Amino acid sequence: MSEEPRVVIIGGGFGGLWAATALANKPVSVTLIDRKNHHVFQPLLYQVATSVLSPGEIAQPLRRILHDAKNVDVLLGEVTDFDKENTAVKLEDGSTVEYDYLIVAAGARHSYFGHDDWETSAPGLKTIEDAVEMRRRILLAFELAERETYLKGEHSPLNFVVVGGGPTGVELAGAIADIARQALAKDFKQIDTRKTKVILFEGSDRVLGTFTPDLTESAKQQLESLGVDVRLNSFVTDIAPGKVKVGDDWIECDVVLWATGVAASPLGKKLGVETDKAGRVFVEPDLSLKDHKNIFVVGDMASIKQEDGTAVPGVSPAAMQMGTATAKNILAEIKGRERAKFTYVDKGSMATIGRSKAIAHVFGLKLKGFIAWMFWLFLHVFFLIGFRNRFAVMFEWFWAYLTRERSARLITGDANELRNALEFLEGEDAVVGAMQERAKAKKLA
Amino acid sequence: MSEEPRVVIIGGGFGGLWAATALANKPVSVTLIDRKNHHVFQPLLYQVATSVLSPGEIAQPLRRILHDAKNVDVLLGEVTDFDKENTAVKLEDGSTVEYDYLIVAAGARHSYFGHDDWETSAPGLKTIEDAVEMRRRILLAFELAERETYLKGEHSPLNFVVVGGGPTGVELAGAIADIARQALAKDFKQIDTRKTKVILFEGSDRVLGTFTPDLTESAKQQLESLGVDVRLNSFVTDIAPGKVKVGDDWIECDVVLWATGVAASPLGKKLGVETDKAGRVFVEPDLSLKDHKNIFVVGDMASIKQEDGTAVPGVSPAAMQMGTATAKNILAEIKGRERAKFTYVDKGSMATIGRSKAIAHVFGLKLKGFIAWMFWLFLHVFFLIGFRNRFAVMFEWFWAYLTRERSARLITGDANELRNALEFLEGEDAVVGAMQERAKAKKLA
Repeated sequence: MSEEPRVVIIGGGFGGLWAATALANKPVSVTLIDRKNHHVFQPLLYQVATSVLSPGEIAQPLRRILHDAKNVDVLLGEVTDFDKENTAVKLEDGSTVEYDYLIVAAGARHSYFGHDDWETSAPGLKTIEDAVEMRRRILLAFELAERETYLKGEHSPLNFVVVGGGPTGVELAGAIADIARQALAKDFKQIDTRKTKVILFEGSDRVLGTFTPDLTESAKQQLESLGVDVRLNSFVTDIAPGKVKVGDDWIECDVVLWATGVAASPLGKKLGVETDKAGRVFVEPDLSLKDHKNIFVVGDMASIKQEDGTAVPGVSPAAMQMGTATAKNILAEIKGRERAKFTYVDKGSMATIGRSKAIAHVFGLKLKGFIAWMFWLFLHVFFLIGFRNRFAVMFEWFWAYLTRERSARLITGDANELRNALEFLEGEDAVVGAMQERAKAKKLA
Repeated sequence: MSEEPRVVIIGGGFGGLWAATALANKPVSVTLIDRKNHHVFQPLLYQVATSVLSPGEIAQPLRRILHDAKNVDVLLGEVTDFDKENTAVKLEDGSTVEYDYLIVAAGARHSYFGHDDWETSAPGLKTIEDAVEMRRRILLAFELAERETYLKGEHSPLNFVVVGGGPTGVELAGAIADIARQALAKDFKQIDTRKTKVILFEGSDRVLGTFTPDLTESAKQQLESLGVDVRLNSFVTDIAPGKVKVGDDWIECDVVLWATGVAASPLGKKLGVETDKAGRVFVEPDLSLKDHKNIFVVGDMASIKQEDGTAVPGVSPAAMQMGTATAKNILAEIKGRERAKFTYVDKGSMATIGRSKAIAHVFGLKLKGFIAWMFWLFLHVFFLIGFRNRFAVMFEWFWAYLTRERSARLITGDANELRNALEFLEGEDAVVGAMQERAKAKKLA
């Protein structure tokens, strides 16, 4: 084993995991390093954020997924730097892991376009923790309105703002409008959750801009039929606790969700090579680095053009394909064969909007509404890793569809969550103060 | 509605929820106040802590459970004090809720016998958050041992310590031994998880001391057959990060779980009446306060004797019965009838130890092993609130039984979790430091 080429993979997302899977039980010694112990099925994160699914239903321990891969070690760790001269990666505690081939697949997060201070007020959606935090804020907004009405006889209007009209923004806006009108309506007795306002701000002149104009227009109409207020050509210029500024106007809101901007993992810059504005690494046609042929960058971290000159999109199928292609290239090279260029195969795209609502462009067909949604549903369940998750998700969806219930409606967090929530409404400082107090309390307790 | 007697219930655990259910759609106006938005099925918390079940499977939103109860309002809030003169309770923000009848059912937490500083090193198990924290620590211990072995060639022995041989301690110890020997064994390639040591410390001379000696002895044997090292007559006298002191000896361990001691909610003392050492309120035979007949205390907060002079035990059936009995007494009094004394009906007791392992004493029958376990399984699924949870839990168990897999093995937490974990091993201060830094980072971010 130890004489076999060592392949180190950074990141257990779609790119890294697909590479590891393609290298499973091949004549290489593989180490997959991730900061988390689990792979997340990111396309369904928004369903955790809107309490349809539980975290455990869209995430699986990496070492469980890879337990039949005898040559793959899974390591919980955070890669903080590279030592290219000694072909090693450095972990957060200073220890090193050597490689013969390195696959960097650390993904991307949302970016705040230089306004990182907005994150506290407008969380994004990339991890399970992000999704649980969104869920907490969404459910808490309804709870606090109910409480206000009980205690004071009325509540200020419930406003949810979603920033960004890409797939995540559309999914979030649609799902919130849906639960407000259906699942929550009968459980809240003081407030009428159906009066909830969901506003989706998109900077460009259409939502889901990667689709054709007719599908895009359909998506907008489907969103509006759910009650979402879609505002195009609207740039959010500032965010503060409880309000967003659009153009020159401040709009009050209970919850702001951030669904735009991409920033590749900062590890890209640590590679010491050229990156684009979003921090993506410019790679060679075989996804390797120009001066380090044994280092590959795949998935959302890679910047590469297709033959028609357009960029390979930052979507999960592209990451999967890059992971698999890189694994194949490494195996080919070991056998003395040539590496192949990476070619992205676009199998079509789809976006879901809500219950029975979606658009899809697959096999040259343009689909809208229920049929597109069925397509989306089938594909997503099919791709969810592992029988058990697949079954559970199908059951949850079937149940949610039949009953319009939402099963995973838990507000979890600290015992002081309510106080924090109330303080949160008063401003950020209070939250930080509460966290520090909590930390102190934990120490004293 | 507003002319109907107002019943305020504090706490949505078994006592409070059963009272609310018994008052549903009766001629009273009910307000249920809880700090959380969900009811937790506490008897299965240990299964979340040991990654068999997901949080969503044992918890349900209170307002969903009660959505058909037209006369019941659910309020997210923390009661901090009482204003008995004006018959009102005070919430954390100073607002008040008035009552004609008050049911205090705020439950109990584990107590550290005056050593509250032990909590950081040895978390207890009362809430979903507690369970997720235990799960994180348990799984992280295995991950860190795997990592240590990968990087350094060996790891220090994996030791888990459970303090307390009551039902929770026995369940936790059994479940950890079980996952170490089965579910995790094939997923970890560097370490042999089957060599994990689980030590259960119990201060008295037997585990599950409320059962008869023969059942108790069987429980000990069943635990030992799972590989648990049961140490009776062993008092833990001190706890520090990474070690526990038993008698005069310090024992090194990776994770310490606290499963002993009971402290009733501090609200008991705020009632201004006599409490026992654990903070339980001495109540009248109808569960009311001596000088305030319209205030009732039910569940783990109440101290009351049975006819044979023994105390009503702090178990969920007792809390349910007290909740229901109190609701009936209130309804009776409204109709001009007499209140009834509370009588606890002991329907038997059971404790689970692991897969196919349990003891039970029901209908005069003493059961051990598989048959007792089947009994336990059936009853717990039956009592889990809601069809959906019941179905999901049954499926999870069936799946876990067949495959010996554990589905909910997620380590969730902050993005800095690993660093914190590593720091945690170095001492408490580091953790608090990390939390404060995180808070600061969140503010700056």
